Amino acid sequence: MSRWRDLADGDALYRLAADLFPLCRSITGPGIRETLARLAEYLPLDLVEVPSGTKVLDWTVPNEWTIRDGYILDPKGSRVVDFHRSNLHVVSYSTPVALDLTLAELRPRLHTIPERPDWTPYRTSYYQETWGFCLSQRQLDGLPEGRYRAVIDADLRPGGLVFGECVLPGREPGEVLLSTHCCHPSLANDNLSGVVVAAGLAKWLAGRDRRLTYRILFVPGTIGALAWLDRNRLAGERVTAGLVLSCLGDRGSLSFKQSRRGDTVTDRAIAHLFGTGGIGTVRPFAPTGYDERQYCSPGFNLPVGALTRTRNGQYPEYHTSADDLALIDPTSLGDSLSFLQAFVDLLDGNVRFRSQEQFGEPQLGRRGLFRSGGGRVEAAHLEEAMLWVLNMSDGGADLLAIADRSGIPYPQVVAAAMALREAGLLV
Amino acid sequence: MSRWRDLADGDALYRLAADLFPLCRSITGPGIRETLARLAEYLPLDLVEVPSGTKVLDWTVPNEWTIRDGYILDPKGSRVVDFHRSNLHVVSYSTPVALDLTLAELRPRLHTIPERPDWTPYRTSYYQETWGFCLSQRQLDGLPEGRYRAVIDADLRPGGLVFGECVLPGREPGEVLLSTHCCHPSLANDNLSGVVVAAGLAKWLAGRDRRLTYRILFVPGTIGALAWLDRNRLAGERVTAGLVLSCLGDRGSLSFKQSRRGDTVTDRAIAHLFGTGGIGTVRPFAPTGYDERQYCSPGFNLPVGALTRTRNGQYPEYHTSADDLALIDPTSLGDSLSFLQAFVDLLDGNVRFRSQEQFGEPQLGRRGLFRSGGGRVEAAHLEEAMLWVLNMSDGGADLLAIADRSGIPYPQVVAAAMALREAGLLV
Amino acid sequence: MSRWRDLADGDALYRLAADLFPLCRSITGPGIRETLARLAEYLPLDLVEVPSGTKVLDWTVPNEWTIRDGYILDPKGSRVVDFHRSNLHVVSYSTPVALDLTLAELRPRLHTIPERPDWTPYRTSYYQETWGFCLSQRQLDGLPEGRYRAVIDADLRPGGLVFGECVLPGREPGEVLLSTHCCHPSLANDNLSGVVVAAGLAKWLAGRDRRLTYRILFVPGTIGALAWLDRNRLAGERVTAGLVLSCLGDRGSLSFKQSRRGDTVTDRAIAHLFGTGGIGTVRPFAPTGYDERQYCSPGFNLPVGALTRTRNGQYPEYHTSADDLALIDPTSLGDSLSFLQAFVDLLDGNVRFRSQEQFGEPQLGRRGLFRSGGGRVEAAHLEEAMLWVLNMSDGGADLLAIADRSGIPYPQVVAAAMALREAGLLV
Repeated sequence: MSRWRDLADGDALYRLAADLFPLCRSITGPGIRETLARLAEYLPLDLVEVPSGTKVLDWTVPNEWTIRDGYILDPKGSRVVDFHRSNLHVVSYSTPVALDLTLAELRPRLHTIPERPDWTPYRTSYYQETWGFCLSQRQLDGLPEGRYRAVIDADLRPGGLVFGECVLPGREPGEVLLSTHCCHPSLANDNLSGVVVAAGLAKWLAGRDRRLTYRILFVPGTIGALAWLDRNRLAGERVTAGLVLSCLGDRGSLSFKQSRRGDTVTDRAIAHLFGTGGIGTVRPFAPTGYDERQYCSPGFNLPVGALTRTRNGQYPEYHTSADDLALIDPTSLGDSLSFLQAFVDLLDGNVRFRSQEQFGEPQLGRRGLFRSGGGRVEAAHLEEAMLWVLNMSDGGADLLAIADRSGIPYPQVVAAAMALREAGLLV
Repeated sequence: MSRWRDLADGDALYRLAADLFPLCRSITGPGIRETLARLAEYLPLDLVEVPSGTKVLDWTVPNEWTIRDGYILDPKGSRVVDFHRSNLHVVSYSTPVALDLTLAELRPRLHTIPERPDWTPYRTSYYQETWGFCLSQRQLDGLPEGRYRAVIDADLRPGGLVFGECVLPGREPGEVLLSTHCCHPSLANDNLSGVVVAAGLAKWLAGRDRRLTYRILFVPGTIGALAWLDRNRLAGERVTAGLVLSCLGDRGSLSFKQSRRGDTVTDRAIAHLFGTGGIGTVRPFAPTGYDERQYCSPGFNLPVGALTRTRNGQYPEYHTSADDLALIDPTSLGDSLSFLQAFVDLLDGNVRFRSQEQFGEPQLGRRGLFRSGGGRVEAAHLEEAMLWVLNMSDGGADLLAIADRSGIPYPQVVAAAMALREAGLLV
Repeated sequence: MSRWRDLADGDALYRLAADLFPLCRSITGPGIRETLARLAEYLPLDLVEVPSGTKVLDWTVPNEWTIRDGYILDPKGSRVVDFHRSNLHVVSYSTPVALDLTLAELRPRLHTIPERPDWTPYRTSYYQETWGFCLSQRQLDGLPEGRYRAVIDADLRPGGLVFGECVLPGREPGEVLLSTHCCHPSLANDNLSGVVVAAGLAKWLAGRDRRLTYRILFVPGTIGALAWLDRNRLAGERVTAGLVLSCLGDRGSLSFKQSRRGDTVTDRAIAHLFGTGGIGTVRPFAPTGYDERQYCSPGFNLPVGALTRTRNGQYPEYHTSADDLALIDPTSLGDSLSFLQAFVDLLDGNVRFRSQEQFGEPQLGRRGLFRSGGGRVEAAHLEEAMLWVLNMSDGGADLLAIADRSGIPYPQVVAAAMALREAGLLV
C-alpha cells in the first residue's frame, strides 16, 4: 500500500490534514466514508457501520446524507453561491431543493455572520429536516433584487453511520480511550487537527510495545460516540484513562478539561505533565463541549477528559470558513502529538506495584542496589527513589502518585521501580 | 378574628414587636402565655404545655413564675425602683420578698452596669432560688443612706412550661425546623425581632404551596428547646434543614453560624445565598449561643445553624434596657424576612432528581428542548443548565449542588430542571 | 547505685553526653554494650540480645565487631593515624589487617573530606567486608612517599546485637514509642544528643503517673529497629503515637517530619505544640532519614514521626569529627527535653471521652458547674470549654481535636474535661 506512510512529525500531520481538507464530511455519507478510508491507509482501522434507524441509547441513527451539488443562481444565471467552491456553503444535512424564488423569499434560508462580514459560517441541521445556504455577509449584501434559483442536489436515504476504531491490544488489563470527531467538513482546527493528531498517535502506538490497550475512535460527533457507547455499555470496566481530542492545530497553548470525576489517572497524569512543564491550563469538568459529554454521562462516568489547544468556541474562527489550513500549523500539530506521546508513555509505565517486603525495608545492599560505604552525606537520587517506591508500594499508590508525593521526577521513579522489579522486590 | 392581620413587611413586623414589647416574659408564666396567645391571632399555632416537675432530657421543668409587682421604697417611701416602669427591674424568677433593710444590706441584691451608667441590666436566676433588682448605676449612686423596703410580689408554683408550634405540612418527606426563643421580657432585638420575623415567615409559608414541611417553634430558651427535643427524639430522621433565629432587627448585616456538621443543606444554602449577594458572613459552629446548642448536641446533631444580624453578645446594648424599640427598625426586620423567604424558596425547590437517561445524553431536540441549527457559537444558557442538570442528576447531587458546581445561578438551574421534568427526563 | 543520678536538665544531659562521647560505638560490640550499661544506671532498661546470624525481617544480624586498636605507621614508624586519638579514624566494621604497603597502595583505603580539609569523616561498612581509615585532607596531604604499615586489631565474630528497651507501663491501653539510635561512635549531635534526651525523658516519665505506656528504645540504627519490629509484629495494635529522636543538641530550632499517615495523633500533637509556640517547622513524611523508615514501612505504618533540631544531613558537621561536644549545648538539650515533656503531657491527657448526655446539654447548674445569674455578657472561659467538650465528646474527637476545633488552649480544654468527669458527665 503506497500510502501506508509516515505520520511521525508535524509536517506529515499537516500534509494529511491538507489532503483531507476538501472532503465534504458530515455525520454520515460519502465524505466521512472517504475520510476513514484514507485514514485506513495509515492505520489498522476497523470500520463499524450502524444502519440508519438503529436505536443507539436515547437516539436513532439518521438517514445517510449524500450531497452532489448545491448552488444559487442569481437573476443573471451566475452561480453566486457554489458548493464546489466551499462545502460550507450548504447547510449540512440539507434536504434536496430546486426552487425559483425572490431574494426576499430566499433570505431566511441564507446564514451569515454579520460581525465577520468576510467569513462564511458553518451550519448543520441533522435532526430537523430543512435546507439552507451559508455565505459571507458581504456576498449577501451584494445580491441584487430579482428572482433566484436555489438548487441542492442531495438525498437523505437509509444507509449507515460509519465510525473508525483502531484497537491496539496491550499485555495487561486496562484500556486507554482516545476519541476524536471526524464529522466536520472543510474546517481545519475543528477538527482535522484532532483527526490527524489521533492518527499520528495511533500509528506511533501501533509500532511499540504496549502494557495497556489503546483504542482510538474516529467518530461522528455525538451520534458516533453514542453508537460506540451503546455497543460498549461495560466500557467502564476496562477503560482506565482517556481523552477526547479536538482543536489541536492552532497556535494557542494546551488546555485540559478534567473528567467528571476529576481525580482519575487521566486528570493526575495531565496535571503532572502540565505541572512539570508549565505548558497548559486545567479547567474543571463541564457537560458541554464535545464527546466527553457522552463518555462522562453519569451512567458511564468514564475517566475521560478533553484536550485541546485553543478550545472550541474560544477562537473567533471557530465554526467559520476562517478555520482553514492557515489557522493550523505543523509545529502546533507536532507539539500536540509529542505531548500525547508523553501522556501515553506516562500511563503505560504507571504500574501499581506491591513491594514484596511490606514489613521493614528490604536489604538493598545484598541485592547490589545500594552503594557500599554508609555514612556518606551526598544524596543518592536513585536510592531515594527506590526507598519511595518501596515505601509507597502497598498496592494503593501507582508510580505517578509516588512521583507526585515525593517530588521526584516521574522518569526516576520508573527507573527505580524497574531496578526493584528486576531484583524481585516488586510485583 | 380582627387581628388575623398582615405580617408581610417590616412595618407590620415592627408593629407586632411594639405590641409585644411591654409584656413581662420569662421562661414560664403569664407573660409568655400572653405572647403566644397574641401570636396565635396571626398564625395556626399549637400551644404545648409541659407540667412543672416534668423531666425533659437531663433537665426538669421548673415551677411557673408569676410576678405582679416589684419595687424598692427609699427612706422617704418613694418607689425608686419600680417593676411597672420596666420589667427589667426585677431579676427574672425572683422569689417573693417583703423586707426592710439598710442600703448596705440591700446592695448585694442590686445589679448595675458600672461602665454603662444609664442602662439597666437584664438578669435571671431560673434554677437557683434568689431575688434581686436591676437598675442603672446612676440611680444606684443617687440612693441616700437609710432604711429601704424591698418588695417583690411574685410566686413560684407548680404550673407549666408553654411553647408554641406552628406546623405547616408539605407534599414530600423532609422538614425544615425554625426556632426562636420568646422568653425575654422587654428586650427588642433579643428577641422580639426573632419572634416577629419567625411569625412573619410562618404566616407567609402558611399561604403557599409547600414541598417540604415547615415547623416554626416559639420556645423559652434552653428548657423549651429541650422540652421539644424530648418529645421529638427522632427529629433527626425528618429534619433536613433548620435555623435558630434571633437578633434579626438591628441595623447590622446578616451573620450565619454553621451547623455542627458544617456541610448540611442549611450550610450550603446560606453560603450560596450569601455568596450570591455578598450580604452576610459565615462563622463556624460553636456550642455556645442559643438553642442551636441543643439542636446540635451530639445525639441529635440536627442540620440546624443560627441566623442573626449583629449576634448575641456582640453589640453593647445586648441584655440591657438599651435593647429597646429604637435599636430595631422596620427595614432590618423586613430585610431579615426577605432573606428567610429566599432561603425557604431555595430549600423548597432543591430537589435531588435522577435523570431518566443515565447512559449518554438524552436527545433534547426531538423533545423540543433544543434550538435547531447546530453549530452556532452563541451560548444557550438554558441548554447549558439542562446539560448540567442531566449530567449531575445521578441521585447524589441536588439542584443547589448543581448550581454551586456549575456556577449557573440557582434559579436558572431550577428552570432547567422544571423543563426537563416536564419532558419526562427527570424523576 | 551511685550513678542513678539526675537527668532533669540540660546540664545533666550534657554531662551524660560528655561521659558517653569517647566510647567507640557501632551497631554491635563493646562500645554499644558499655553505652547501654551506663544508661541502665539511670533508667530501668531491659537489654535484649539477638544472636549473630538471626534473621530479622529481610535482614540478618551480622557478626559482632570488636576493635582494640587501629593505626598507620609512617615511613619513620610514627603513628600518623591513631584509633586511640579518635575512634572515627577506623572505618566502622573494618576487618583486621596488618600490612606493609606504599602510600599509593594505601591511598584507596584512606577517606577524607577534601572540601573540609581539617575534618575527619565518619565511615561504616557493616554489610560488606572491607577495611579503611578516615583522616583529614590536610593530614593526608602531609604524608610523605614511602612504605607505611596499616594495622587494625579487630575481630568480627559471632556474638550478638544488643538494644535497650525501657518500658514504663500505663493505666490504660495505648503505647507511645520513642526510639533513638545509639550506634554512632564519637559524634555528639548525631546521636548522643538523641540518646541523652531520650534517657532524660524516660527518667522523667518513670517518676510520674502515666495513663499510657511509654516504650523508649535505644537501638542500633536500621538493624536494631528491624530486630525490635521483628519481635513486635503486632506493634500497630498498641502503638498510638511515637517519635524517632535524633540530632537534638545543636543550636537550631526544632523540626518535625510527619508520620507516613500524616494525620495521626503524633502529627496533630506536634502541629498543635508548634503552632501554639511558633517554635518549630513541620515537613512531610519521606522514607529517608533514620528509623522512621522502618516504623513507617507499609506493613507497620506506625503513627511515628521524627523529631530533630537541625536535621541529619542539613548541617555541615554532620557525620564528621566536627560533630563534637562543642556542637551541642546544654540549653538546646534542655529545650528538647522540655518540648518532649510537653508532647508527652499532651498525649497522656488526650482522652477521647464520651459525654453521658448525648441528647441536649446536661444541666451544669445543678452540678455546681455553672455560674449563677444567667444573662451576663462576660465570657466565662471554663464554661465555654465545658460546652465544647460536652458537644464534641461523641466518642470521635479527643481533647486535642476539641482544642484545635474550638481554638481554646489545650490546658483549658483538659481542665474542663476534668471538671466534667468529676461531675460524672464524661466517661
